[in-house]
Amino acid sequence: MTPPGSEKSGATQAASSGCGVVGAPLMLPMSGANGEALVLRNYGLRFEAGLIREIAPYNELAEAGAAADIPCEFLDGHILLPGLVNCHGHAGMSLLRGYADDLPLQDWLEQHIWPLEGALVNAEFVEHGSQLAIAEMLQSGTTTFSDMYFFPDVLADAAVAAGMRAQITFPVLEFASAWANNAEEYLSKGLALMDAQRHNELLRIGFGTHAPYTVSDQTFQRVAVLAAEVDAPIQVHLQETAAEITQSKAEHGCSPVERLQRLGVLGPRAQAVHMVHFDASDLLILSESGTSVVHCPASNAKLASGYSNISQLIAAGLAVGLGTDSAASNNTLDLFDTARLAALLAKQQGDASALPAWQCLHMATRGGAEVLGMGAQIGSLEVGKCADFIAVDTRNVAMQPLYEPASQLIYTAAGNAVTHSWIGGRCVLRERRLQSIDNNALLEQNATWRERILQWRARQ
Amino acid sequence: MTPPGSEKSGATQAASSGCGVVGAPLMLPMSGANGEALVLRNYGLRFEAGLIREIAPYNELAEAGAAADIPCEFLDGHILLPGLVNCHGHAGMSLLRGYADDLPLQDWLEQHIWPLEGALVNAEFVEHGSQLAIAEMLQSGTTTFSDMYFFPDVLADAAVAAGMRAQITFPVLEFASAWANNAEEYLSKGLALMDAQRHNELLRIGFGTHAPYTVSDQTFQRVAVLAAEVDAPIQVHLQETAAEITQSKAEHGCSPVERLQRLGVLGPRAQAVHMVHFDASDLLILSESGTSVVHCPASNAKLASGYSNISQLIAAGLAVGLGTDSAASNNTLDLFDTARLAALLAKQQGDASALPAWQCLHMATRGGAEVLGMGAQIGSLEVGKCADFIAVDTRNVAMQPLYEPASQLIYTAAGNAVTHSWIGGRCVLRERRLQSIDNNALLEQNATWRERILQWRARQ
Repeated sequence: MTPPGSEKSGATQAASSGCGVVGAPLMLPMSGANGEALVLRNYGLRFEAGLIREIAPYNELAEAGAAADIPCEFLDGHILLPGLVNCHGHAGMSLLRGYADDLPLQDWLEQHIWPLEGALVNAEFVEHGSQLAIAEMLQSGTTTFSDMYFFPDVLADAAVAAGMRAQITFPVLEFASAWANNAEEYLSKGLALMDAQRHNELLRIGFGTHAPYTVSDQTFQRVAVLAAEVDAPIQVHLQETAAEITQSKAEHGCSPVERLQRLGVLGPRAQAVHMVHFDASDLLILSESGTSVVHCPASNAKLASGYSNISQLIAAGLAVGLGTDSAASNNTLDLFDTARLAALLAKQQGDASALPAWQCLHMATRGGAEVLGMGAQIGSLEVGKCADFIAVDTRNVAMQPLYEPASQLIYTAAGNAVTHSWIGGRCVLRERRLQSIDNNALLEQNATWRERILQWRARQ
Repeated sequence: MTPPGSEKSGATQAASSGCGVVGAPLMLPMSGANGEALVLRNYGLRFEAGLIREIAPYNELAEAGAAADIPCEFLDGHILLPGLVNCHGHAGMSLLRGYADDLPLQDWLEQHIWPLEGALVNAEFVEHGSQLAIAEMLQSGTTTFSDMYFFPDVLADAAVAAGMRAQITFPVLEFASAWANNAEEYLSKGLALMDAQRHNELLRIGFGTHAPYTVSDQTFQRVAVLAAEVDAPIQVHLQETAAEITQSKAEHGCSPVERLQRLGVLGPRAQAVHMVHFDASDLLILSESGTSVVHCPASNAKLASGYSNISQLIAAGLAVGLGTDSAASNNTLDLFDTARLAALLAKQQGDASALPAWQCLHMATRGGAEVLGMGAQIGSLEVGKCADFIAVDTRNVAMQPLYEPASQLIYTAAGNAVTHSWIGGRCVLRERRLQSIDNNALLEQNATWRERILQWRARQ
């Protein structure tokens, strides 16, 4: 909210005072049931103290706002909608964008990513990588993201400094990293983070049990008990590759889904990420337990993990959200792009009416909020919910003519047309300029890390 | 560089005088064999009278250029590469972007697109739709495109006015349209266009035999003979849906590929668009005849036509280029986006090393040029070829850090980072601003058409 040279504008006052009125020719509140196509014309919303207080025709709000000295702005040519919810990623890994491409998952992890992480990941790596990821997500319309990576305390600080909302699931696994030496230490450090951030309005801390092949039965059971005690979410990479299922059947005599069900991990607070491969029995277990699923189509395709048949997951009644996964395996954190890919791939299975634009947009907003257990706070524009909303400028040749707003948002490159973003009423993006992050300092940080990483690689 | 308000700068002179030197930290000439990863650092190119005259370290070119009073510019943070080649589209249909989504091909065509086209398509529709498409392609890095639509004469004028290079295949089919009443008239009008544009350096006119289900045996045979006589390309939608093959087998006793082979249509000047469904026999026919293929992954997915296994096409030795198809079925004309989708979908078949970034970039540039039979003129940066090149600015958070230029171009949203474009040495895009098209007039035209189209729909 600081347009260069106009620091005293009404809009700037709105950002700092935390109240304001914003309107646009089109508003998609996403407040109805799954896929409902409600479009409000020339509407606005009034926010105060972080929450949406009123949704009404813009002229009415502006008249009352002027009388009460509330800053008002109408964004010509824009669509207003809830900020997007990115349900899965590893923000720190943004420093590895394009570091190793065109490789299968296990090679990619074991030969490239893990050796580098073992040598170079520290608190500063996570701080700078997370800032980069947050900047990219803010510029492409995400206002809430979920994360699972080392030094989650550092990420928490970066998210709060940028004014971004996040579910941070601290990593839990059996192997040592720069952050912790064993499952016990991951858990104790993670629980300490949970205590420290318990009253932070922007953050929700949960358990990030990495994957069935990196976490023991004992640790899964421990997490299941702890998560119930503290009422926190559990996110886990689950059935991402066919090899993972084969290995589980050999070692545990059942699929990873069945194993996690036996260990008490599944349930309404469990978020299963990927679910590329599944059978009818897995589906039934997920559905009966109320476990939700995070669909990451770009990462699954790029690593050749396979296609997660999202239409089958939805038909089974599961809550499904969208995730970009990390910039190291995607390589973009633009959730509009992920939503389009989800729609295209669902149709490619043989039905062009599968996952229509409105349903896809629902998944990227309200659906994602429900997966994260935050459906009462975010995901739609409704009075009493958080003032997390974005504006997309449709006045460019790639988005014209505009017949159907949802179509334009899903099927054209809307992520690059996000001009404004508010989180809890704080304007964090204005005219595409980051308001809470120093863009140039960020680019300098990246250049430094790039040199460090290339020098390390040259020494191997 | 033309900073706003300094129209008299050297670069502007370069654009009009048709000579200049442009350099950047990274140049990808794409001059080697398929997928060769040549990266030149701090290189530049000198162009004059439409052609590339010299490629050398920028400092050398700039020193000589200064002595000879040639305008020189170095684009900090940019990658220079050949302009992209979009091998299939229907530019006029850009006015129908998002008009009817989430529908299968036949419904989409028969219930929505064809009735509207029958009622509203005229020369003005094509002129304004084509201008919109050309603007979008220029802003996302395409410098040559192929087209097949009614009123190709109007498109030809629009392309030349915008300074864009094009293969324009005039439509040939049995059904009446606003442009022609029957195959005979399509052919005579098309051949007249070919004569009129024979000496235009920007255009190559060819035959656009629409599809096996809209063109008779007699017409196909006639086109095969004519195309050989005038040495012109033939582009045809081929085996896009499974239904098309079933119908052909019922009516003609063979697959469409086999039918076109029998009719003499296939060969080095034939470009088969889509090829979603094929068997070993089709592959052999295409390969032995030297027919090339245009892969349109976004349109094929969105219309649920299926997946064209591009890896199999390449393994069979076919020349393969990329096409966006029209904005009505994609809904974006960004060829970088199409290239990424091609890479992701190829990997999703089970091999993460399939269609790596360099190979994909080759297909989007040099490969496409070869498909269009223009490999000697465009597709790579080499002395003597046309000065068709673009610059991509990597200084944004979505493209950093940069380890591998091809990865960044293919896997991040490079289409939105194209800042400059030269075609035949004429600068048509500068700092993302269109130089040969009035952006605001275009948006007004679109708004008018949108109203006209919605009013027509309301009356149905």
